[in-house]
Amino acid sequence: MTHQPRVVIIGAGFAGIEAAKKLGKHRVNVLLIDRHNYHTFIPMLYQVATAILYPHQVVYPLRRLFRGFSTVNFLQAHVEKVDFDQQIIQAENTTIDYNYLVIATGSQTQYLGVTGAMENTFPMRTLTDAIAIRNQVLSRFEQAVKVTNEAERIRLLTFVIVGGGATGVELAGSLSELINSALGKDYPSLNRDRSQVILVQSGERLFASYPEKLGKYTEKWLRRQGIKVHLNSKVSKVTSEAVYLEDDTAIFTDTVIWTAGVLAAIPQTKQPVKTATKEKILVEQTLQLCGYENVYGVGDVSYVESEEEFNGVAQEAIQQGKTAADNIRRQISGKIPLPFDYFNKGRLAIVGKHAGVGKIGKFAIKGFIAWFLWLEVHLVYLPGIRNRLGVLFNWLKYYFFGESASRIIISTNRVRSNK
Amino acid sequence: MTHQPRVVIIGAGFAGIEAAKKLGKHRVNVLLIDRHNYHTFIPMLYQVATAILYPHQVVYPLRRLFRGFSTVNFLQAHVEKVDFDQQIIQAENTTIDYNYLVIATGSQTQYLGVTGAMENTFPMRTLTDAIAIRNQVLSRFEQAVKVTNEAERIRLLTFVIVGGGATGVELAGSLSELINSALGKDYPSLNRDRSQVILVQSGERLFASYPEKLGKYTEKWLRRQGIKVHLNSKVSKVTSEAVYLEDDTAIFTDTVIWTAGVLAAIPQTKQPVKTATKEKILVEQTLQLCGYENVYGVGDVSYVESEEEFNGVAQEAIQQGKTAADNIRRQISGKIPLPFDYFNKGRLAIVGKHAGVGKIGKFAIKGFIAWFLWLEVHLVYLPGIRNRLGVLFNWLKYYFFGESASRIIISTNRVRSNK
Ligand SMILES: Cc1cc2nc3c(=O)[nH]c(=O)nc-3n(C[C@H](O)[C@H](O)[C@H](O)COP(=O)(O)OP(=O)(O)OC[C@H]3O[C@@H](n4cnc5c(N)ncnc54)[C@H](O)[C@@H]3O)c2cc1C
Ligand SMILES: Cc1cc2nc3c(=O)[nH]c(=O)nc-3n(C[C@H](O)[C@H](O)[C@H](O)COP(=O)(O)OP(=O)(O)OC[C@H]3O[C@@H](n4cnc5c(N)ncnc54)[C@H](O)[C@@H]3O)c2cc1C
Repeated sequence: MTHQPRVVIIGAGFAGIEAAKKLGKHRVNVLLIDRHNYHTFIPMLYQVATAILYPHQVVYPLRRLFRGFSTVNFLQAHVEKVDFDQQIIQAENTTIDYNYLVIATGSQTQYLGVTGAMENTFPMRTLTDAIAIRNQVLSRFEQAVKVTNEAERIRLLTFVIVGGGATGVELAGSLSELINSALGKDYPSLNRDRSQVILVQSGERLFASYPEKLGKYTEKWLRRQGIKVHLNSKVSKVTSEAVYLEDDTAIFTDTVIWTAGVLAAIPQTKQPVKTATKEKILVEQTLQLCGYENVYGVGDVSYVESEEEFNGVAQEAIQQGKTAADNIRRQISGKIPLPFDYFNKGRLAIVGKHAGVGKIGKFAIKGFIAWFLWLEVHLVYLPGIRNRLGVLFNWLKYYFFGESASRIIISTNRVRSNK
Repeated sequence: MTHQPRVVIIGAGFAGIEAAKKLGKHRVNVLLIDRHNYHTFIPMLYQVATAILYPHQVVYPLRRLFRGFSTVNFLQAHVEKVDFDQQIIQAENTTIDYNYLVIATGSQTQYLGVTGAMENTFPMRTLTDAIAIRNQVLSRFEQAVKVTNEAERIRLLTFVIVGGGATGVELAGSLSELINSALGKDYPSLNRDRSQVILVQSGERLFASYPEKLGKYTEKWLRRQGIKVHLNSKVSKVTSEAVYLEDDTAIFTDTVIWTAGVLAAIPQTKQPVKTATKEKILVEQTLQLCGYENVYGVGDVSYVESEEEFNGVAQEAIQQGKTAADNIRRQISGKIPLPFDYFNKGRLAIVGKHAGVGKIGKFAIKGFIAWFLWLEVHLVYLPGIRNRLGVLFNWLKYYFFGESASRIIISTNRVRSNK
């Protein structure tokens, strides 16, 4: 080859960084683009929202991650548009051309058409979201100390989580622990019975994508913690005062966290692309876009037909990122791309302190062992040895001494907007 | 006593927490009020602004700090008005009465009437300010990678600090180190010579309140690091494009950090109070307000006549906080208050890596020893043993391995405003 081909990767999530690493190791020219200057370890975000971990512990600066890779460059930018025919992308007034493109932009929150949901609920996808939730929860307690009206105090101390998937369950369990342990000690004047965590799930059980008995186990565990679990309940409206269910129940609250829906986050494209469920880009078995063999779609943003049932988890994104990188290398050296072959390592989720659920191969596991495996697996995947030590330290502190990270409310009022 | 008197303390800075601790130890009823839910260790804020430390490491949650004190209550609120005759204060729709009042609200940034300074510069007093500066510096580098115009790139990489006191010097030294070490590695494509740190000082030397030779030493040290030091230079105007000096020099920059002026931060008072320089409340030798013997003014917000020259430093605030607490206890038990007696333990400031200056008694010290003492003293005064360990770890990492804390740009765009 006379001319070194350039691979552009949009999105530095699980799929994007894996593809960049694999290509970088083989000295292929890569331009990795993300709107943040860090990679977000999304599965641990809820621990920032509930003050178990510090914000910096769940993200990793991308320039540092790729310091050792001389052919990988990073650009912090928001990609606005892709033109597959011209082979260019538009990002904040800059036009960037590519020989190969990997779209790894993940997913976004979807409000399922519920009135007022976008305006009045907290999403939970980014570091900024997690910090906002932490600020909200802590400042509701500070507010509750001040009000004299009892109904208003109860409203301030009611926290509603919409969505009974892994994120909703993890948040509910962890939030209730925060309130019972740390906040109980911080606000001795508040009657703890006044505070409640409510989990609203549209389906008939929690963890719909796990075996049924794990959903039951989780439900029991959460109820024992004092969490109110509403099953078969759809949210019909959210206002700044309350959340309304379809059966007309009104729950008065100042804090609704929305973990219910998910939608692919595709940048605008000049040429229409075929999409599947949740607006995901439909890709071939090789992860190439139908009709554009130099374009790949990987991770949460894409949909590949398969016997395996994909659930939009980090492992799928990681393995797809690797496959796309391998296939691009094959194409560069004149070979044909190979189909994606998923190796399901199993799944795990945390329910609360010393309790988890998981499915590994045919085995459903629950309780302490699932909890412990979750911590171990997530520690291993977290980038950076120093980061790992810090997280381990916070976990020991939290899980064994009941002391969470410092509960500071960082106001953003006086931050000068970025020009 | 039949009725337990209540002491209200406004401001949980160095003076406020010291007074609260001393009173709390003797089981006096205290209500401590601050607009933040944490105490800020201001002398270390610049290390957050330059990514040596993490935000949570320089603040401490007030409820945790006072958990062991059963008679000390905390309220997060902004105090709007004080009425000395009625003995009440107004804070966000709540009226609070007191028997004794301690005003410990510290100081605020003062822009000295310079046109555009308030709108176009970054202040440096609060945690939010420090995070904003860190975001600004890091995102200027991300911007600089993208622009094609060389003049614009130089403008983006020019950082101007106004004020040659301790804060200005510490920021200048530390910012230049950040750029040369960590950012040099992160942005290999940027020519480091394009970046510059400029320190603008109105007087004829740096560190005006230290012995002259320390100012000279500092100036030489900073210049050797490549920092441009402008002495005898007053800023006449700041725009979003540039900062203008009185001799009509224009420095084109996107980042001006303002550390030059300071003003007392007194809440509104129903009755006029006598003020001294920098609008500080004039207090008696006993730290009582003239005319109101149950009201004390301590720390940066107050001015007490003395042979000793006060400089508005943490030690003065701490010792005044203690004296006010002692005097209130004397009053409660029917004794008369005693005059404030300052024990000057000396002062220290950091110039850069392994270089500091200080004055202890009659001795002026500089270099490694002053630097080392600074670290030691600040570590000892920092609240919380776990916090201290974390800070020590970050310092070792930074001062010996040149690796700073993670350089993440936390956008605040999508944070829902606190209702
Ligand atoms: C709260 C939560 C908890 C979860 N917990 C788990 C768990 O415990 N275990 C598990 O396996 N999975 C979990 N998941 C799912 C998992 O996070 C996703 O499957 C995984 O992140 C998908 O990886 P990805 O690389 O496709 O996308 P992402 O990781 O979402 O990364 C996409 C990246 O693209 C960037 N981007 C998007 N659009 C643009 C644009 N236009 N321009 C520039 N950059 C852009 C984003 O900033 C982001 O960095 C969780 C998801 C959520 C939301
Ligand atoms: C950037 C910087 C660096 C410094 N470095 C050093 C140093 O290295 N060594 C040193 O000795 N000194 C240093 N100083 C000076 C030192 O920080 C001050 O002398 C000290 O903080 C004064 O303590 P204080 O308790 O009077 O006020 P502060 O520490 O400023 O505390 C005042 C408190 O009052 C609260 N407050 C104010 N108004 C209200 C209101 N209306 N309602 C509710 N709460 C309110 C604030 O939130 C704050 O918590 C530095 C100052 C700055 C700005």
